[in-house]
Amino acid sequence: MTLIIDCHGHYTTAPAGLEDFRNAQKAYLKDPTQPLPQGVTISDDQIRESIEGNQLKLLKERGADMTIFSPRASAMAHHVGTEAISQAWTRVCNDVIKRVIDLYPENFIGVCQLPQSPGVSIAKSIAELERCVTELGFVGCNLNPDPSGGHWTSPPLTDKAWYPFYEKMVELDVPAMIHVSGSCNPNFHATGAHYINADTTAFMQFIEGDLFKDFPDLRFIIPHGGGAVPYHWGRYRGLADMLKKPHLRDHVMKNVYFDTCVYHQPGIDLLFKVIDIDNILFGSEMVGAVRGIDPETGHYFDDTKRYLEALNLSDENRHKVFEGNARRVYPRLDKVLKGQGR
Amino acid sequence: MTLIIDCHGHYTTAPAGLEDFRNAQKAYLKDPTQPLPQGVTISDDQIRESIEGNQLKLLKERGADMTIFSPRASAMAHHVGTEAISQAWTRVCNDVIKRVIDLYPENFIGVCQLPQSPGVSIAKSIAELERCVTELGFVGCNLNPDPSGGHWTSPPLTDKAWYPFYEKMVELDVPAMIHVSGSCNPNFHATGAHYINADTTAFMQFIEGDLFKDFPDLRFIIPHGGGAVPYHWGRYRGLADMLKKPHLRDHVMKNVYFDTCVYHQPGIDLLFKVIDIDNILFGSEMVGAVRGIDPETGHYFDDTKRYLEALNLSDENRHKVFEGNARRVYPRLDKVLKGQGR
Repeated sequence: MTLIIDCHGHYTTAPAGLEDFRNAQKAYLKDPTQPLPQGVTISDDQIRESIEGNQLKLLKERGADMTIFSPRASAMAHHVGTEAISQAWTRVCNDVIKRVIDLYPENFIGVCQLPQSPGVSIAKSIAELERCVTELGFVGCNLNPDPSGGHWTSPPLTDKAWYPFYEKMVELDVPAMIHVSGSCNPNFHATGAHYINADTTAFMQFIEGDLFKDFPDLRFIIPHGGGAVPYHWGRYRGLADMLKKPHLRDHVMKNVYFDTCVYHQPGIDLLFKVIDIDNILFGSEMVGAVRGIDPETGHYFDDTKRYLEALNLSDENRHKVFEGNARRVYPRLDKVLKGQGR
Repeated sequence: MTLIIDCHGHYTTAPAGLEDFRNAQKAYLKDPTQPLPQGVTISDDQIRESIEGNQLKLLKERGADMTIFSPRASAMAHHVGTEAISQAWTRVCNDVIKRVIDLYPENFIGVCQLPQSPGVSIAKSIAELERCVTELGFVGCNLNPDPSGGHWTSPPLTDKAWYPFYEKMVELDVPAMIHVSGSCNPNFHATGAHYINADTTAFMQFIEGDLFKDFPDLRFIIPHGGGAVPYHWGRYRGLADMLKKPHLRDHVMKNVYFDTCVYHQPGIDLLFKVIDIDNILFGSEMVGAVRGIDPETGHYFDDTKRYLEALNLSDENRHKVFEGNARRVYPRLDKVLKGQGR
């Protein structure tokens, strides 16, 4: 039987103690005579309540088994405060994820936030990645291509500035989901523009560059169904050709995967039509960007499993999308599952 | 019989005299002792050659009748130089378009570039819009939501800063295509990321705002098939709902149109599945972003008419997409066509 693994879930429902910590940081940033927060006050019962009434409830209702779980993406806000503030916030967020996993080891597995800051070397994020993977048992990370929050001041993901981090990813054998955070640029609505733009931007950077020649084992998940990419697949095939790059199949798609966070059936149909089944991982981003019920279907917009089931995939392909691809892209997840006899 | 009107063509093949002008401007910007260029030296024969060997040839080969034609989008480069430089460059570019139209009045009709500059009020673009529409007979304009070229320093399109220009658009009864130019931000490949992101961004700005309450007659074409929007149509319907906005049909889609610059059949199929036929205008952006032949089909990527014909639209819908919608969105085009007995 196929495990249903959702590769894209954030802890958007964390107990208020987490936000209290962040608010205390922000108060300190405004007025450094205020005390820096030293930790979060959250009970296990509060965590249970926040998970069992939300993510776990929906996971079960929708017939899924497990979520690859990370801190709330919009709250990473790498553009807020200093490097030290970002480091402290990130550590606290990751530690809360670890507590969720310890409470529900069969339903959640961790992916970490990184303590990025605009203008600060990504090498400064290596220690937290290593801590989360080797000490907390996390299986991947969320990498923000734009820690400035909508001003896009970092170099492209193919720039050598990112290489020290990629080396560590390869060494630890963990993938990164490319995921921006909130936007402080009024042009970009976070979930409606900034997220989707970042997905599209990252993919085009990979076409322009030759990153995967240098890192043949590096793996990225581009969320939100790959941004605009599948819809414009002809454009990207054509641009690769104009730029004298190899076929996308060889140039990018050995290393890049798309999730299924596309909130209507025609979008999912397109995704599966143009993208190879080996490059698609089931994801919903629940509880996340779009929380309502689609009046056209009577079901939650983000109940993406429903759209996938409607595809009537072969058993083999269904297994790939819901389980096999995730085990392959996140080898440390595979190891944990095997340890659980799954 | 239906006229086949391509709503999206740029003069990407202009004679070298135009680039000479621009290069002289750039030389002046580097060294103000250099002379500012005073005009372009381009013969009618050079224009004929550049058009008959490219756009007109392809128009005829593909069985289309007319292109709504504007200066090369990537060369607008509003971020280069001063306000005066942008004004002079824009005027020259629009005048060259006018010469194309005078030579081929049945095949081309003009849409103007605007002399935008980062940090300069859009009100400074009104005079050129007025000149192009009332003196040169143009039927619309290309409006750049990000004259900074990828730094996104302007206010969103729903901000009142843009209102003086919208008032003039409504008064003249001309629509704008929302079209960025080249990118000077290394994160964004122009045609592979910046263009598509801008389309997506503009649409989400319209969802967030209430612009069309203030301007019920304002009309925008979002090119490149609406960026990522149709692929994520469920997300946008859901976000409108979360933001307590009316249904997209009433909130945005009475004023916003998408072209068909989507370079593969599955993308076009999706566009026509989720977007109302009244909101889609045939466009190809030829000769443009992607110039090659798709090895999967043996035809040019940007031969979008072919994808549309494969939809087997009803006569009524086919007429809308190829002609009727364009006449409705560009009333001044309709008037010109009627004057030509078409």
